[in-house]
Amino acid sequence: MQRALELAATPGVPLGPNPRVGCVLLAADGTTLAEGFHLGAGTPHAEAAALATAREAGVDVRGATAVVTLEPCNHTGRTGPCALALVEAGVSRVVFATGDRNPVAVGGAETLRAAGIEVESGLLESESRELNRVWAFAVEHQRPFVTWKFATSLDGRSAAMDGTSKWITSAAARQDTHRLRALADTVLVGTGTVLADDPQLTVRDADEVALPDQPLRAVMGLRELPARARIFDGSAGTTHLRMHDPREALAQLFARDRQHVFLEGGPTLAAAFFKAGLVDEVVAYVAPVLLGTGRNAVADLGIETIADARHLRVTDVAVLEAVGQDTCVRITMSTASTHPEGN
Amino acid sequence: MQRALELAATPGVPLGPNPRVGCVLLAADGTTLAEGFHLGAGTPHAEAAALATAREAGVDVRGATAVVTLEPCNHTGRTGPCALALVEAGVSRVVFATGDRNPVAVGGAETLRAAGIEVESGLLESESRELNRVWAFAVEHQRPFVTWKFATSLDGRSAAMDGTSKWITSAAARQDTHRLRALADTVLVGTGTVLADDPQLTVRDADEVALPDQPLRAVMGLRELPARARIFDGSAGTTHLRMHDPREALAQLFARDRQHVFLEGGPTLAAAFFKAGLVDEVVAYVAPVLLGTGRNAVADLGIETIADARHLRVTDVAVLEAVGQDTCVRITMSTASTHPEGN
Ligand SMILES: NC(=O)c1ccc[n+]([C@@H]2O[C@H](COP(=O)([O-])OP(=O)(O)OC[C@H]3O[C@@H](n4cnc5c(N)ncnc54)[C@H](OP(=O)(O)O)[C@@H]3O)[C@@H](O)[C@H]2O)c1
Ligand SMILES: NC(=O)c1ccc[n+]([C@@H]2O[C@H](COP(=O)([O-])OP(=O)(O)OC[C@H]3O[C@@H](n4cnc5c(N)ncnc54)[C@H](OP(=O)(O)O)[C@@H]3O)[C@@H](O)[C@H]2O)c1
Repeated sequence: MQRALELAATPGVPLGPNPRVGCVLLAADGTTLAEGFHLGAGTPHAEAAALATAREAGVDVRGATAVVTLEPCNHTGRTGPCALALVEAGVSRVVFATGDRNPVAVGGAETLRAAGIEVESGLLESESRELNRVWAFAVEHQRPFVTWKFATSLDGRSAAMDGTSKWITSAAARQDTHRLRALADTVLVGTGTVLADDPQLTVRDADEVALPDQPLRAVMGLRELPARARIFDGSAGTTHLRMHDPREALAQLFARDRQHVFLEGGPTLAAAFFKAGLVDEVVAYVAPVLLGTGRNAVADLGIETIADARHLRVTDVAVLEAVGQDTCVRITMSTASTHPEGN
Repeated sequence: MQRALELAATPGVPLGPNPRVGCVLLAADGTTLAEGFHLGAGTPHAEAAALATAREAGVDVRGATAVVTLEPCNHTGRTGPCALALVEAGVSRVVFATGDRNPVAVGGAETLRAAGIEVESGLLESESRELNRVWAFAVEHQRPFVTWKFATSLDGRSAAMDGTSKWITSAAARQDTHRLRALADTVLVGTGTVLADDPQLTVRDADEVALPDQPLRAVMGLRELPARARIFDGSAGTTHLRMHDPREALAQLFARDRQHVFLEGGPTLAAAFFKAGLVDEVVAYVAPVLLGTGRNAVADLGIETIADARHLRVTDVAVLEAVGQDTCVRITMSTASTHPEGN
């Protein structure tokens, strides 16, 4: 299963709406017969890929054990159902890590059992879940997972009193933001940020060169945007969501196979998502800088008393450093956990 | 020298105005003849302690090598000069880690060399300096080292809009604060904090029991304090500094052998110290809590534009956790480094 997870996590795979899945076919004596992993929408599923590899190599897989990171699917989408393919190939045992939460794909284990195949599940389940955290969330909630990213000084400011904000966070934080953008499939900002900053919102490397795969650039709000704005420079897809309802915006993005929205602000749009309970993860870049006064990094969230404060769960803390530059602390938090009882 | 440093760092030693020092006397063949460390003001210095131990055990130290973490002192304070003691004992070689920066104690190496003793220095120098970081700072600057501690939500608030602030930071952070208080010899707050919160400002363990050694409690400001305030409960020493000048307050504390002030606020007093350039270290407890609005954790620092922002150097980051409680991120920063060039 460890190997199947490694296959699933093969870097550089563009997955679109599908989860990361790996599959290893084992002989009765435990030797590997064939391996496969899923390469993204429209390509064979991991099981099909492994069976095809075995076929091409002339390897007999009858009586073999299929180790798969995800429950084999049971529906005919762009590819045939994997459960059936495994039955037809004569596999005698299937071990999978985690059940398929996709309502249209579910039922693979039952199909296999009905065909007399031995089925086991739960091996390295949490590792497999982690691998497909965002995908599983999107399938379960039928909307994209939302990561809200903001930058702040140690005292909660995003700019000085006169509005200047250049380099509040370090070069390392800016590079790190590009890395996180690349992990999402959509970057979202409000019209206010486009009109104020004219950002490009592409994923660029340390030399400012745009990478080949770019997330969709989405701008939300009713105001018209200038045609010469940099988000329309053609270096990545762009969509203008002419609306104010965060839920509706996420629904439209989900309908376009978007699973992970990287919400980069500004404060007004971020507060709207947060108040609507539609932020799942918060990434704060905290610069070790004190300003005392200035523009607030976080807008009014409608909280009046401490009992209503939103407590987040810290999932990761990292110090970002770049040679000869200021450091910056990245704090990643989940909104899933509520305030602990009795506190 | 490693062993001498271990001796110097012996836990539980109340040092007062003196540095931590350890000393090992070695025979020509490298075997240890005797060891000693300094126990605090009024007790023998490390070298004297080691020589006394050797004498009591009837060990001959003539021709021995003295390994000391700090340059042997040259002045007669409450104890005689150590350089002279080593000369008189007939030691033939002295190796020390770091020079003595105390202007009245300096010159030990010269005295030793003048007496024909071989002198070497610099062995594990940075380790020795770290051990006496606060002491060395106080001696060099002739004022106490100042650590400013504050607690803040992720968005720079210390209380909600209605003033409520209970449990912004976690139980783990409150315990950690007590640990840091214990490392300092003075806890300092403004009259505003005493009048608003009536804090006890003692070092207590997890069960709220006060520890035997307590730092001095200092309150700064002109207003009278109620005699029944908890800082006057007798559980530790207390001083009311009836003044507004941070430099003058530090001078008075230094005159009372104070080397490390733990400045716990409130915002007004902290800003006064910060603006005066009299904060050397900042410890921020950042709670993963969002408030959006509310009381600012840091007061106006007189900064109007980003170029004047105070950039700090992150020296440590830790996630503080307590079972069943919110976590909290502690960021420790030094004010020593200025803004890196070209940023
Ligand atoms: N610290 C940071 O990390 C960070 C990040 C990004 C931006 N910024 C700064 O933030 C500033 C812009 O602030 P901003 O708050 O105006 O930007 P914004 O949040 O990007 O844009 C606000 C606009 O979003 C639209 N919108 C869409 N849905 C909304 C809803 N549910 N509720 C309210 N508005 C909604 C509205 O536009 P319509 O009026 O067009 O409908 C609104 O005026 C810039 O100066 C930028 O530099 C800071
Ligand atoms: N977030 C945190 O970590 C934290 C920490 C501590 C307190 N607090 C909160 O802060 C609030 C109290 O705020 P505060 O600002 O009034 O407290 P403060 O800073 O403790 O006290 C302010 C007072 O300090 C005196 N002072 C001494 N030197 C001064 C100088 N150079 N400049 C100005 N004032 C000087 C003045 O008193 P005189 O008028 O008597 O001369 C002034 O009114 C409380 O609600 C408390 O809970 C928060």
